[in-house]
Amino acid sequence: MNKGLSVAIVGATGAVGQEFLRLFDLRDFPVRDLRLLASKRSEGKTSTFKGVEYTIHEAKSDSFENVDVAFFSAGASRSRELVPHALKAGALVVDNSSAFRTDPNIPLVVPEINLDAVGASDRLVAVPNCSAIILLMAVNPLRKLGTIDRLIVSTYQSASGGGAGMMRLLEDETKALVLGTELPPSPLSTRYAYNLFSHNTPIDDSGYNEEESKVIFESRKILSMPELKVNVTCVRVPVLRAHTETVTIEFEGDAPSLEDVRSVLESSPGVRVVDDRSGNRFPTPLDASGQDNVLVGRIRQDLSNPKAICFMVSGDQLLKGAALNAVQIAEAVLAREAVG
Amino acid sequence: MNKGLSVAIVGATGAVGQEFLRLFDLRDFPVRDLRLLASKRSEGKTSTFKGVEYTIHEAKSDSFENVDVAFFSAGASRSRELVPHALKAGALVVDNSSAFRTDPNIPLVVPEINLDAVGASDRLVAVPNCSAIILLMAVNPLRKLGTIDRLIVSTYQSASGGGAGMMRLLEDETKALVLGTELPPSPLSTRYAYNLFSHNTPIDDSGYNEEESKVIFESRKILSMPELKVNVTCVRVPVLRAHTETVTIEFEGDAPSLEDVRSVLESSPGVRVVDDRSGNRFPTPLDASGQDNVLVGRIRQDLSNPKAICFMVSGDQLLKGAALNAVQIAEAVLAREAVG
Repeated sequence: MNKGLSVAIVGATGAVGQEFLRLFDLRDFPVRDLRLLASKRSEGKTSTFKGVEYTIHEAKSDSFENVDVAFFSAGASRSRELVPHALKAGALVVDNSSAFRTDPNIPLVVPEINLDAVGASDRLVAVPNCSAIILLMAVNPLRKLGTIDRLIVSTYQSASGGGAGMMRLLEDETKALVLGTELPPSPLSTRYAYNLFSHNTPIDDSGYNEEESKVIFESRKILSMPELKVNVTCVRVPVLRAHTETVTIEFEGDAPSLEDVRSVLESSPGVRVVDDRSGNRFPTPLDASGQDNVLVGRIRQDLSNPKAICFMVSGDQLLKGAALNAVQIAEAVLAREAVG
Repeated sequence: MNKGLSVAIVGATGAVGQEFLRLFDLRDFPVRDLRLLASKRSEGKTSTFKGVEYTIHEAKSDSFENVDVAFFSAGASRSRELVPHALKAGALVVDNSSAFRTDPNIPLVVPEINLDAVGASDRLVAVPNCSAIILLMAVNPLRKLGTIDRLIVSTYQSASGGGAGMMRLLEDETKALVLGTELPPSPLSTRYAYNLFSHNTPIDDSGYNEEESKVIFESRKILSMPELKVNVTCVRVPVLRAHTETVTIEFEGDAPSLEDVRSVLESSPGVRVVDDRSGNRFPTPLDASGQDNVLVGRIRQDLSNPKAICFMVSGDQLLKGAALNAVQIAEAVLAREAVG
């Protein structure tokens, strides 16, 4: 570890890729050698890390020689294609895409929750869907207070979940509306600025979109609760980079006291309680943006069910919802290897 | 009716007030004489209706002489002060504020749902909260298919619910961010542009804000279901004028089939089903803006409860959520008087 690691980022030009660089610096991640990889389109572009300019290269099957840790954040098909090569080259791979999340042999990890899912020989760890991570950061600690029967969730998801391109789309559309100029071309079925829409992923025969199916499947896998009941609606709102979710947790028995809920959340790593009723200050995506912690507030009894409590949670989609969670996974696995 | 009516609008300069004028024109509301009233601040301003310019006067206790119908949309304290004078002057009063909604002697009416709540001698009718109206327009028709036990609702509320001032705040903040200028002063505890926040009404001891308490109380009153269970979280999003809500309805027995739900909603006046799974087109606030109908889509089984279905609804807060509902009430009561 002293000499540092050779680190690769696949998807280095993306919104999450750029957060990796910021986090490596902030967290003193032991980078000795940095390999910034992206699609052919970005070949030759540059990116700066700790004052040094790095050239971006096309990610290919032979890009991973001598790489110690590879972070993938370039979509599921790119991961399916290249992760096997990175593993063969001996790298520890932390994959932000959905490519391997449903594979029962691949751990799907939020370090605060289920780091123990990473076995000693595991060299590939999947980072969960952003909405699932942010939800479970608030939900998991409350398992100390009772057995959870059902989650009811509505999301207020930001543009960053659709990548740098969708953030730009929201900003460009907003700018066009403010200036009275023509709207830019859009891949969406509706305008995004001053609007919201059901999550723009394909809908299956049951009527659920991919994002909702991920939240359901991944919550069960991460919590090791294969029968957990999950009611979820995923909606995208005109916010730039943090997701918010309204959450109801139904317990099998009576709901825990709000004092216990607050106290457990306040002592949970990665969680900050923002619950000022008199000042009307609760989690907002703006306050959550750039923060490592997810913010939890509006903690209250569900008036329609004595076994349930409600709250809202906001978390930075690019940080805890993606890059930060990935770096935390790498740090934990590397620390264990250093000890072991 | 032939000679038309003397009509007063209290709150004529507000966002809802302006919609009254547009609706009178569109619907041929029989206006013979128009009295535009507002706060002292607006005395002397003008507003145009059918090509004629009307001067706005301060609303006072003696403003209602010979008025046949008075529409109030200037807040609860103004209504509490002036509605008694309008009634004494003999006007039919339709009040958009919350002043009289909880009074068991005052009907709280969505015409498609409970027009029968208006008794022959009733001269004051309250218009429900906008979020409650939009919710119940989609919920009420489904009572044909089973007994409803519980509603679970998260709102995505637009700026217009906070009046013309809040719409301007959202636009001004957005403009400042686009142009890189200083943010305008704001009465909110957080920035609104590219952000969202728990509804900015006071929170009571149970942890619920006023908007949520209204949705709970008013749903029960309008549906005449005093024991209805309601789980609700009200959130404001950076959208200009239509509200969206994610809704789960839990029935006492098994959930009705989705075909039955669609078919009942498609034949319900004031409702339009927008539910294109393959094209990923569902209700959006942009599509609902300026529309009389509320839009319902994402109709699906709740995967966590066989007794429940889920959907989302979008409705124009200024129209069905306020001015349109008020004009419909007046039309129905006047038509009944004309017959009776």
